Amino acid sequence: MSEETLKIAGFKAAAVRSGIRGKDRLDLGLIYCVEPVAAAGVFTTSLVKAAPVLLDMARLKKNGRCQAILVNSGIANACTGAEGMDLALATAAMAAKKLEIDAELILVASTGVIGAPLDISCFENGMTPLVAGLKDNGFFDVARAMMTTDTVPKAAVRTVQINGKKIKIAGLAKGSGMIMPNMATMLAFIMTDAVIPAPVLQNLLGKSVEQSFNSVTVDGDTSTNDSVIIMASGKAGNETLDGHDEGALALFKGALDDLTRDLAMKIAGDGEGATKLVTINVIGARTDAEADQAARCVANSALVKTAFFGEDANWGRIIAALGRCGASFDPEVVDIAFDGVLMVKDGVGLGEEVEKKATKVLQQSKFQLNIDLKAGPCARTIYTCDLSVDYVKINADYRT
Amino acid sequence: MSEETLKIAGFKAAAVRSGIRGKDRLDLGLIYCVEPVAAAGVFTTSLVKAAPVLLDMARLKKNGRCQAILVNSGIANACTGAEGMDLALATAAMAAKKLEIDAELILVASTGVIGAPLDISCFENGMTPLVAGLKDNGFFDVARAMMTTDTVPKAAVRTVQINGKKIKIAGLAKGSGMIMPNMATMLAFIMTDAVIPAPVLQNLLGKSVEQSFNSVTVDGDTSTNDSVIIMASGKAGNETLDGHDEGALALFKGALDDLTRDLAMKIAGDGEGATKLVTINVIGARTDAEADQAARCVANSALVKTAFFGEDANWGRIIAALGRCGASFDPEVVDIAFDGVLMVKDGVGLGEEVEKKATKVLQQSKFQLNIDLKAGPCARTIYTCDLSVDYVKINADYRT
Repeated sequence: MSEETLKIAGFKAAAVRSGIRGKDRLDLGLIYCVEPVAAAGVFTTSLVKAAPVLLDMARLKKNGRCQAILVNSGIANACTGAEGMDLALATAAMAAKKLEIDAELILVASTGVIGAPLDISCFENGMTPLVAGLKDNGFFDVARAMMTTDTVPKAAVRTVQINGKKIKIAGLAKGSGMIMPNMATMLAFIMTDAVIPAPVLQNLLGKSVEQSFNSVTVDGDTSTNDSVIIMASGKAGNETLDGHDEGALALFKGALDDLTRDLAMKIAGDGEGATKLVTINVIGARTDAEADQAARCVANSALVKTAFFGEDANWGRIIAALGRCGASFDPEVVDIAFDGVLMVKDGVGLGEEVEKKATKVLQQSKFQLNIDLKAGPCARTIYTCDLSVDYVKINADYRT
Repeated sequence: MSEETLKIAGFKAAAVRSGIRGKDRLDLGLIYCVEPVAAAGVFTTSLVKAAPVLLDMARLKKNGRCQAILVNSGIANACTGAEGMDLALATAAMAAKKLEIDAELILVASTGVIGAPLDISCFENGMTPLVAGLKDNGFFDVARAMMTTDTVPKAAVRTVQINGKKIKIAGLAKGSGMIMPNMATMLAFIMTDAVIPAPVLQNLLGKSVEQSFNSVTVDGDTSTNDSVIIMASGKAGNETLDGHDEGALALFKGALDDLTRDLAMKIAGDGEGATKLVTINVIGARTDAEADQAARCVANSALVKTAFFGEDANWGRIIAALGRCGASFDPEVVDIAFDGVLMVKDGVGLGEEVEKKATKVLQQSKFQLNIDLKAGPCARTIYTCDLSVDYVKINADYRT
């Protein structure tokens, strides 16, 4: 994707090396809108919420709009007590002053090590070049500045024609550890030029997150900082998407869901140490909740994930994970397939020939695991990755 | 521990290389009692139960006694359908014939790969030398024959004086992957010379398993084959432990609980790839269930476990795991300590000096993580290990 592709009417962005992560890495980003716009957010469900999350939640609830997002990587500003909140407020105020806007209109986001203090002098040093550098095609730089253990910057774009008007949605996201429901990306920022009120945005975003970021699990850990924020500049000039035209809203929703799912799968595929993106489809569950339990239990099983890494079509581990997941089903009727290769029919393995075919599926960098519990009408899809030697190395060495 | 130490009145044991695991490894074991004795068992809670588990559950429920346990490693005889049950019945019958006892008195146990078929010819070849080899001090050989990815055989002994009679309890166990509640060892066999009725044994064993095997987690995976079986030969000649003498029963219970906890900690310490045994104590939880949730959530967090492996006193990951565990508490009052080193006081880190001391604690092969939620009176202890590069290597390569 080119820098140009991410350009979106009404928004500018920039990123700098502020020194939080040393001299050589982009670590401070800014997304700016030319005027205050409708905004909505979905945040971590963890009881332990970082200062930026608490601040953004309060501001979005109060205002339903914002004008800029200031994001840093390196340090999460979580579990930092009153000083952490003071710093979040001070850095937002600093950005507001340079941008000459109301400080209440700034949202902040941080990602990185929990419990360490952020050094305000990095923000002081970085703010002038950051604001001076704002440009139409600066979004990729922000995606880079958000990265922690991500190996690639993550962005996606969708356009949709609604009643003759072209509407664009662009999104940036980062993973890639501490990734589980609920709020499966640590950070995602979505910008659209649509005319759409904040309450409608909030409603659509909540649903969209469910089938995208909340359907990803890398390691079963939910972060203290997870945030998805959407801003709508209104520059597309469409008739307001307030639900009076259901078809128009459905078109926008479809494009938004498609974009968030794309970002979510990018996060799963770039999970820490990941070598494979695995889509787990559970069908035939008794209830939605049981479909979710089954899919997540398989997706989070260390034994299943190491078997993916070893390209070992070890369905025994899958059926063992299903057995403990709490969903009701008859183990003697379960079917398990990798892509189109049926390995287990009615709870019993189909033998070595089939296993050889399934092994070939697992050798791909991307495949589906399809499980039919045959216990009811409910289904769930979860995106995950394998558990590799590198995952352990990355996380054993992260701070050293 | 010497082979002699494990000797226990009324029991004999032996193990052979039957060929299930190639020519060089003990893979088939037999524990035999000179007469039918009181027995009890606790088995996997997984919905997917292996054939040996289903057979033993039925036999113990019907008879409340047994005379021998036939155990193999290499293949789990799980998800093997009707043929798997036929094989379990046939191998038990084969052992019964050689031992010249009723086949109903034989229990069977298998551990290893799920979904693969066991070759009955291995049992046919191994049974004659196995029965011929039964001896008073054959228990360590059985502990060796049970091993899969275990690096050491696991055994423990306790003796207790009850009303002037010396009673002995000996146990064998194996881990070391697919280890989580409920039934945290794949296999444990306990023998005692006490005179004690089967219903009392069943009651004591259920409680004992709760604070031992069900308090261990290596990787959050529960197996299809987990079994703990206890047999009481009655050779100690004590007054029957039927509860009429509460003090006597309490003494036996104390010794049994101590033994099962010892075996459970041996399993955690020898978890796949483990380099550290970690005891996680959560206190101050609102309810028992929340104490359990909190302790398990920390113990199963891939990020916490990789930090243990990296000897990184990364309390941010611990507090993040607590934040998503579902227990109610105020993050701003939580205390976290490694052994005696308090790292987090009232939700905030105590700085670099303390972190250096905590790092020294983590460099040990065995340490405690103490968490005080300050939300109520309830506590829970969970035994776990770190997540190492070797865990992934072992499980990516297990079948290849």
